[in-house]
Amino acid sequence: MIEYIKDIKEWIMKNILKFGVIGLGGRGLNMMENLLRMDDIQVVAVCDLYADRAEQGGKTVEKMKGNKPLVTLDYKDILKLAEVDAIAIFTSWESHISLAIESMNAGKMTTMEVGGAYKLQDCWDLVDTYEKTKVPIMMLENCCYGEVELSVLNMVRQGVFGEIVHCNGGYMHDLRFEVANGNKNRHYRLRNYINRNCENYPTHELGPIAKVLDINRGNRLLSLTSTASKARGMHEYILKKKKDDAELLNTVFKQGDIVTTVIKCENGETITLVLDTTLPRTYSRGFTVRGTKGFYCEDNNSVFIDGKHNIFDNKPSMLWNKAKKYIKKYRHDMWKMNSKDRRKAGHGGMDYYVLRAMVEAFKNDTLPPIDVYDTALWMSITALSETSINNNSTTVEVPDFTRGKYKARTDKSSGIYCLDK
Amino acid sequence: MIEYIKDIKEWIMKNILKFGVIGLGGRGLNMMENLLRMDDIQVVAVCDLYADRAEQGGKTVEKMKGNKPLVTLDYKDILKLAEVDAIAIFTSWESHISLAIESMNAGKMTTMEVGGAYKLQDCWDLVDTYEKTKVPIMMLENCCYGEVELSVLNMVRQGVFGEIVHCNGGYMHDLRFEVANGNKNRHYRLRNYINRNCENYPTHELGPIAKVLDINRGNRLLSLTSTASKARGMHEYILKKKKDDAELLNTVFKQGDIVTTVIKCENGETITLVLDTTLPRTYSRGFTVRGTKGFYCEDNNSVFIDGKHNIFDNKPSMLWNKAKKYIKKYRHDMWKMNSKDRRKAGHGGMDYYVLRAMVEAFKNDTLPPIDVYDTALWMSITALSETSINNNSTTVEVPDFTRGKYKARTDKSSGIYCLDK
Repeated sequence: MIEYIKDIKEWIMKNILKFGVIGLGGRGLNMMENLLRMDDIQVVAVCDLYADRAEQGGKTVEKMKGNKPLVTLDYKDILKLAEVDAIAIFTSWESHISLAIESMNAGKMTTMEVGGAYKLQDCWDLVDTYEKTKVPIMMLENCCYGEVELSVLNMVRQGVFGEIVHCNGGYMHDLRFEVANGNKNRHYRLRNYINRNCENYPTHELGPIAKVLDINRGNRLLSLTSTASKARGMHEYILKKKKDDAELLNTVFKQGDIVTTVIKCENGETITLVLDTTLPRTYSRGFTVRGTKGFYCEDNNSVFIDGKHNIFDNKPSMLWNKAKKYIKKYRHDMWKMNSKDRRKAGHGGMDYYVLRAMVEAFKNDTLPPIDVYDTALWMSITALSETSINNNSTTVEVPDFTRGKYKARTDKSSGIYCLDK
Repeated sequence: MIEYIKDIKEWIMKNILKFGVIGLGGRGLNMMENLLRMDDIQVVAVCDLYADRAEQGGKTVEKMKGNKPLVTLDYKDILKLAEVDAIAIFTSWESHISLAIESMNAGKMTTMEVGGAYKLQDCWDLVDTYEKTKVPIMMLENCCYGEVELSVLNMVRQGVFGEIVHCNGGYMHDLRFEVANGNKNRHYRLRNYINRNCENYPTHELGPIAKVLDINRGNRLLSLTSTASKARGMHEYILKKKKDDAELLNTVFKQGDIVTTVIKCENGETITLVLDTTLPRTYSRGFTVRGTKGFYCEDNNSVFIDGKHNIFDNKPSMLWNKAKKYIKKYRHDMWKMNSKDRRKAGHGGMDYYVLRAMVEAFKNDTLPPIDVYDTALWMSITALSETSINNNSTTVEVPDFTRGKYKARTDKSSGIYCLDK
């Protein structure tokens, strides 16, 4: 018995992944807590530009795991640590790519929260660094692991919707409170909404759509146009809710309230992507998949199967809020697991799954389900949309970051967290 | 009593509008019947390229009104008739504008069914002919008179949604049966779907959106991009439902299944317009109005009012299918009328209202609520979208058909059918 426990402990230790965590704002702390709940994870170093956040991070590690991590304000201290296997980047959008590149160059497996690129070249630099170092990198696009997104992906792969022709998606989330309180809460969104006008958060829901359309796996994004509405939501919100804040009252926001990006794919599909974060609304990722045999639509939670449902032609609301049985029938294996960790993790469980997908890929040396080409491509939409918006919605070519390899790739992600066909 | 009845009859006769009707396919016959139900309307001539349709039209007039109209295969016979006050054009899309121009040049008040333009110059010719002849013309965009559209317009005008920032709309209607049976039913859609790729039916729902955004009344459409998906829906449908029709099986359709057009307005609003007619789906015009204080959304029939509804942030479906009380509260005066004619007319009543709006404008010599500038502009989207699609979604400027007059127009439609602010 003692022998047996010793074996397990040895096995766990051998297989423990030691993380350095950079960026411990609200989201970073929460994601680190999700990691700390895993038995085979340690956090040995934490970093934030703000001392209070770094200290809070250190205390959280100690409380949850017992060890005292290195606490630093300088991420370079972490990259130097030999015992760090992997770096998790939960910083503001602006530093994601440069930190990821430094991390890969330091030989650390690298993972990062979602965001968009500021320059197209940064995305190329990310890919080039990966191809030079071969250090694994994965963006943590949790929506790829949403229950609905995975069920719909299953339905697509099983041909339920026929040939897929068009998808919609977006980030539709009223963030006016968060943006308006950006100074108080040291949040990077405020400065971004003041200074830029672009599809600033493309990866929800482009990530799941890219998997539906086999992007970087035989298909690719060809070009896009991006069009921004005027920016009125923030100012009206501030007039009502922040009328004593002279600085905010005089702030001009560049970020249009609604940004519509239309993307063409090489295999003929189109994607409409919407950023919609500064007007009053309910939350949605607007996920819609349209095929020759049917559709799924998030915004009224409906599934339509040709031949079965066309009797409702004049009474479409009979289908609304009835997708549940399809979501259940085609549930992905990972969502059938009765996981205590999943339930503790955020966003209904998908935060746990995306983190677990990353950990498994890193530990088993398999291709991450969201690899460097996916990461670079999805992030590049932000920079490309900015170019389009600044040039009267001109058509902008989307680069092929795989340099032709997408046509017949043989490397695939594997295991239960696999997103490849 | 006899005197009194005589007076009424005289009054009716003096005010009777005498129509020549061109185009008596399914829709044309139906629209003519709606006209014939009105006491102050006569149809004195009917025309179709097909003799059987023309004869059927003549019989319908005789049955409903008692008079024998001129029945002809040549529309020029009708334009020559001195007793014809107005021409109603219910022909295939291709001939709308040229017939309208001939009709105006013949001095006949002119009305026509909806459709899109084939060339931008045709729209200019329509405007130029109007400005030369001053003969009234109105396109019969019935969706401008939909119950929901008019209630939402009322809400917009009363400030319920705050400043309007973005609108969605489209023609989302599974027409696969209609298109596939185009040869049998002599329907123009088939040849259009084979030979063109464009936003072929823009005026539902651009018409109602244009009224919401005061287009041609202080605001204007500036530019658009248009992107078409691949065309797969028709071929898959034919494989399943028309597998014995060798000609159809070998037909290649140019028309993309889903065409997404994004339009920028001078006052900063954006419009996303969708054509979606050859994939399985339920009917929708996808009408959505987004403002700084709230929204209306057709696709889940919801109204969101800022401050009142944000409690549902994580349970958006609580708002679905609850717009009814707002639609009722802000009901347009014309939808409060208990009209027997409305109920007999098609499409829930809006066919009656749009026809009545036209008749009232023509009889009272007031500006039609959908005037020549609206007609030309809305129809031009088809030609402009074709240019954009054929040039990799390039940005295309939308002309100002008012030649600057839109900024401060003083002429307005009036009466209960008025759509102007």
